[in-house]
This record gives sequence, structure tokens and C-alpha cells, in this order.
Amino acid sequence: MPGEQTKFLGYALTDPSKWHDLKVIEFKPKTFEPQDVEISITHCGVCGSDVHTLTQGWGESKLPLVVGHEIIGTVTRVGDKVTEFKIGDRVGVGAQRGSCLQCRECKDDYENYCTNSIETYNSQYPDGVVAQGGYSTAIRAHQRFVFPIPDEIESRYAASMMCAGLTVYSPLKTHGAGPSKKVGIMGIGGLGHYAVLWAKAMGAEVYAFTHDESKVEDIKKMGADHVINTGKKDFSKDLTRTLDILLSTRDVFGDSTPLGEYLSMLYVHGRFVTVGIPDVDDTLPPIHSFDLVPNGCLLGGSKIGSKKECLEMLELARSKGVKPWIEELPMREVGKALQNLKDNKVRYRYVVKQDLA
Amino acid sequence: MPGEQTKFLGYALTDPSKWHDLKVIEFKPKTFEPQDVEISITHCGVCGSDVHTLTQGWGESKLPLVVGHEIIGTVTRVGDKVTEFKIGDRVGVGAQRGSCLQCRECKDDYENYCTNSIETYNSQYPDGVVAQGGYSTAIRAHQRFVFPIPDEIESRYAASMMCAGLTVYSPLKTHGAGPSKKVGIMGIGGLGHYAVLWAKAMGAEVYAFTHDESKVEDIKKMGADHVINTGKKDFSKDLTRTLDILLSTRDVFGDSTPLGEYLSMLYVHGRFVTVGIPDVDDTLPPIHSFDLVPNGCLLGGSKIGSKKECLEMLELARSKGVKPWIEELPMREVGKALQNLKDNKVRYRYVVKQDLA
Repeated sequence: MPGEQTKFLGYALTDPSKWHDLKVIEFKPKTFEPQDVEISITHCGVCGSDVHTLTQGWGESKLPLVVGHEIIGTVTRVGDKVTEFKIGDRVGVGAQRGSCLQCRECKDDYENYCTNSIETYNSQYPDGVVAQGGYSTAIRAHQRFVFPIPDEIESRYAASMMCAGLTVYSPLKTHGAGPSKKVGIMGIGGLGHYAVLWAKAMGAEVYAFTHDESKVEDIKKMGADHVINTGKKDFSKDLTRTLDILLSTRDVFGDSTPLGEYLSMLYVHGRFVTVGIPDVDDTLPPIHSFDLVPNGCLLGGSKIGSKKECLEMLELARSKGVKPWIEELPMREVGKALQNLKDNKVRYRYVVKQDLA
Repeated sequence: MPGEQTKFLGYALTDPSKWHDLKVIEFKPKTFEPQDVEISITHCGVCGSDVHTLTQGWGESKLPLVVGHEIIGTVTRVGDKVTEFKIGDRVGVGAQRGSCLQCRECKDDYENYCTNSIETYNSQYPDGVVAQGGYSTAIRAHQRFVFPIPDEIESRYAASMMCAGLTVYSPLKTHGAGPSKKVGIMGIGGLGHYAVLWAKAMGAEVYAFTHDESKVEDIKKMGADHVINTGKKDFSKDLTRTLDILLSTRDVFGDSTPLGEYLSMLYVHGRFVTVGIPDVDDTLPPIHSFDLVPNGCLLGGSKIGSKKECLEMLELARSKGVKPWIEELPMREVGKALQNLKDNKVRYRYVVKQDLA
């Protein structure tokens, strides 16, 4: 069992012009506080957020910067006030590692919506320390943002649940996915494939939307009841007023996305929820009240998920034996994983394994 | 008591270049069917939809066309299969006078969302007869779309409840307005003033948003707990993450409307619901996922309301003594009322009284 960390190493962006050519650096960890848990990282999933951040699509990032926020590892140190964990526990950290814990949101189990959230990387603690992510040897996080991993879930499977899994579980739960509900999933990549798996495990009838014919057989194996090729003209016609929820995992829009056509597939008061966050200059396709009023539908967003939801999700995965479709690489090959993710060549999530510690 | 109608007269648009210069015409009523109720009209409210239709803002209208869909009158004839009404009853008809009554929506008490809805005017019955509206002597409608008016509500007050009142009552009910909820109302005209009255009667804390300083005292008298001048810089700042519902009655948007700022006032999973339908070329201001994801909010629409909701609304008005703020004119002055409505000179709804019958 690894001991308390003395040296924190990570694969970092040092030059934005070489966005996936990451260099090993030593970095200063967060100042250790009484509610903190220190984790020796064994696995980290590769998320689209990493690409947006590294390519500066969401704005200029801090430098040097270690990204990665689908972290699994082993507890190596706990602060005096940590009650939930002990050294040796297998745990995870997702896209958030801190929040104010005082505001209405934090008290309502909506800490993922706290306006003083500390993101797992590319944010800054009040004392000035930059938050570095999971393509590294270790991380420290407040116990509220550390999740216990059930014994039945292997670390390589649990990793990408921490962000991809939770980000789609939360809106499915919030908007009522379950038996007798028809749930559409738009974009079957890392997040979308989880959405198919969860929606099915929750008992919903699942409609998967993809423009990629080569994914159709996989998506059926994931459990989708219907797979719709969005490249076909009038693909939405037979589904008018059918869906209760349509979850969009797309993180690229552009004016050509037929948003009105997607909205027309919703039944009365159905919800289109986007969890993808495109680059800053990529607004949603224009919509008119005529797209919202005829079926009284709603178009909304969702941001990762709360600890409460994460624990529910892990219990669902455990009890139903849900396993994501992943590809594993050593952590030094994370640049290749990131490039393949950007090029849409992943089936369906990369997970990198520790090789620095 | 007026007898069965033999001649149907109405104030009609005959030349779109003179949109509010309406001429008296005789028109052919809907073919009388067994479930139909014939109503001798006494009052009709003046709605923004009339202006959009007459000015051809929603596309080319039928000609000649009688508009008006906030109708109150007395039953003069009932079909063989009418069970809900008898001759002499005081009743109302709103923006819808028919639907298929067979589809999922109709069976779920969402007949207002039926895709085969027959609008009160400017639509066509299957047999080709054009539906003519309420600035006329009489109307025929299927009993499902006829509402009994409680004795305690005067006809002049009931009229505008049929569309303006119901259109805002429905989303307030659907999205949970009530005690402990904070409800924002944007745009305090005919619809907006009803929204203030209903939200208050439902027990919510009401935030009214207006750019018109001259309305502030009125709005307080209507019962709003807070009146916010949207002309002031940073008006939304103190209200960040406050509102559960924000109901927009605006029917003009344009790119300068700070939609992101409005959305930022919503608490987690709060809903911005638009009931206004701008002209066809007036899309919603551009939004980005960044406007929806941080608070997981939703942006949606709502279309008039169901009979079930209308009956609830009338009971609320009756039990709480809710009265709209209206101005009355004889029906021959409907053109003046329409012009004033377009120029935002109404406080807060015109109702015209029968003078043709």
C-alpha cells in the first residue's frame, strides 16, 4: 500500500501550441486541510473537457496544467476531521473537488451547482494554489467530493463513471427516467454510451441517436431499444411527440444542428437537456418560440452531479452490474488518447493507468 | 334571452393594409354538430394574438377574417349530444374551439397541445368552413372547448381569462407556483398582469419585471411583492439564483434581450417559460450551453391551457375574488383597442361589448 505522498508528479500542458504533447512536471499540491483526503491515483478516465481545456476552447488555461478528472485511487492520508474514509480505501474523484459548503445549493445537495465550486483542474484554491488534475501520481480533495467505490466495481470501470457517468446519470434521475418513460440519447460517445447504459438500467425505453452507422451494432449491444441514424432525412418524423427526455451529449453545435427537429420529438412538457459544453464561440442553434410552444417543451442544461447522485449511480452500477465500454492505455500515452478522442476514434472511453508512481 | 342565431355578423379584416380598420360582414358559421354549443356573444377580450394575426406577423391570414378569442356569452342552442350545457347558461370560449379528441394529448388532458387543434379563428374545419372569432354576434364550438362561468365572476372580467388568464395560469400550475416558491413575471401587460394576480392568489412570492416606470404603482397594487425595473443596469444581480419560475409574456425579443441574464436569476433547475409568440422572423436571443449548465436551468414554452386547468383557474378566481384590470369599449371601437394594444397603451386588457346583435 502506497504511503503519504511527498512528491506530486503529473503529465502537464506546458505549451498550448502542442496541446496533446504533455510533459512530466512536479507540482505543488493543494494545502492539506483537516477535511481533506489524499489519494494515490491508479486510474484516470479521458474526458472531452480535457480536450476543450487543453486546446483553449473554453478560454485560456493556466500553465503548466495537469488535466484529468475521472480519478480512482487509494487513500493514503486523511485529515483530522475526515469521517467518511480511512487509509487504504478505494475511492474516486470527479470533475469537482471543493465548494463553499455553506450556500443554499450546497445545503440542498446541489453542491455541483455551487457558485464557488472548485473544479478538479484549472481552478485555484483561495490560498492561490492551482488545482491540478488526475494524470498525475496523487490528488487531495475535500471528503465531500470523494466517493467510495463498491468492491464489485473494478477501478478501470469506475474511473469514467466519476465524470462521464455522473454527468448523464444526474439529468436522467432529475428528469424522471424510469419505467414507462421514453428516453432519447443524442451522441453516443463517452457520455452517451453511459446514458444508454443507465437509462436502460433504470428501466426506460431507450432511443439512441447517432450519425455514425459504424456504431449501430455496439449501441444495440449496450441495450438501446431503438437506434436512429440522424444522417437520414426526416429521421425525426416517426418520433414526433414521443420522447419524455432527450439528453444531448453533443459538445459541438453550429447552426446546422436541427434543434427544432429534436424538440419536435418531445411529448408535451418533455425536456431536451444538454450536458455537453461547446467552445465559447459555439452558441446553440437559433430557436423560436414556435419551437417551444407547440408541445410546451423545455430545453435545459445539467452540470455533473452531486455526491448523493454519485452514490446512487454507483449502487445502480453495482446492483445491475453495469460496465462501461473502455479502452485502457498506460498514462504516458494519454496524449494519444486525447488525440483519438478529439478525432472521434474512441470506443467509448479511454482510461489511462498509472505509470509515474 | 336571445334565441338561436340565424345571421352571424362580425367585425372583419378585409384588407391587410388597413389592419385595424375592421368592416362588418356576414359570415357562415361552423356546421352545427351534435356536440356543439351555440353562443350569443356579449363580451370579447382583445388579445395580442389578434394584432399578430391582423398585421400578418404570424404569416398570411385568411380573408375576410373576424378575430377575437376571449369570448363570453349565453348558450342559445345545444346539439343532441351536449351534456355539459343548456340554453341560457353563461359560458366562455378561448383560443381553441376544437381538437381531434382521440390522440394521446387529448386523452391526457393536454387537448391544448393536440396537433389537430382548431384555433378559434384563422383555422379551418375539415369541411372547409373558416373559423371566425369573437368580434361577432355568435359562435359555435364543441362542448369540450366551452367553459361554464361561475355566477360570482362578471362577464366583463371573465372574458380575458379565456385566453390571457389561462395562458399564464397553465404554466404557473404546471411548474409548481405556490407557497414557498418565488415566481418572476416578465412583461406586465394583459398576460403579465394576470400572472401577477394568479401567482399571488396561488401563494407564491411574486417578482414583477418591467421596463415601464409608469406601471410600478399599479403592479404593486396587483399584489407583486417586488417590482424590478429592467431598464436599470445590473437589475438581475441581486436576484442571482433566486427564482423558481420566470414566466415571460414578451412577444418581442430581438438580440438585445439579455436572456442569459434572465436565466441567471433562476435557482437550480428553475424554469424560464415563454408564453409570448413573437413574429416569425423574431427568434429567441442566442444562447450558449454556458447559459443553461451552471444552474441546470430550463427554458421552455407553454400553449394556452386545458379545460381542466381553465376550470381550476375559474375556481381560483371565484374563491379568491380575483379581478383583472380592464378597460371596456363598445365592439365597434375594437380597432382603437387593437391600435392601443399594439402601442402598449392598454391598462391592462381591453374588453369590447356586443353592439351588433
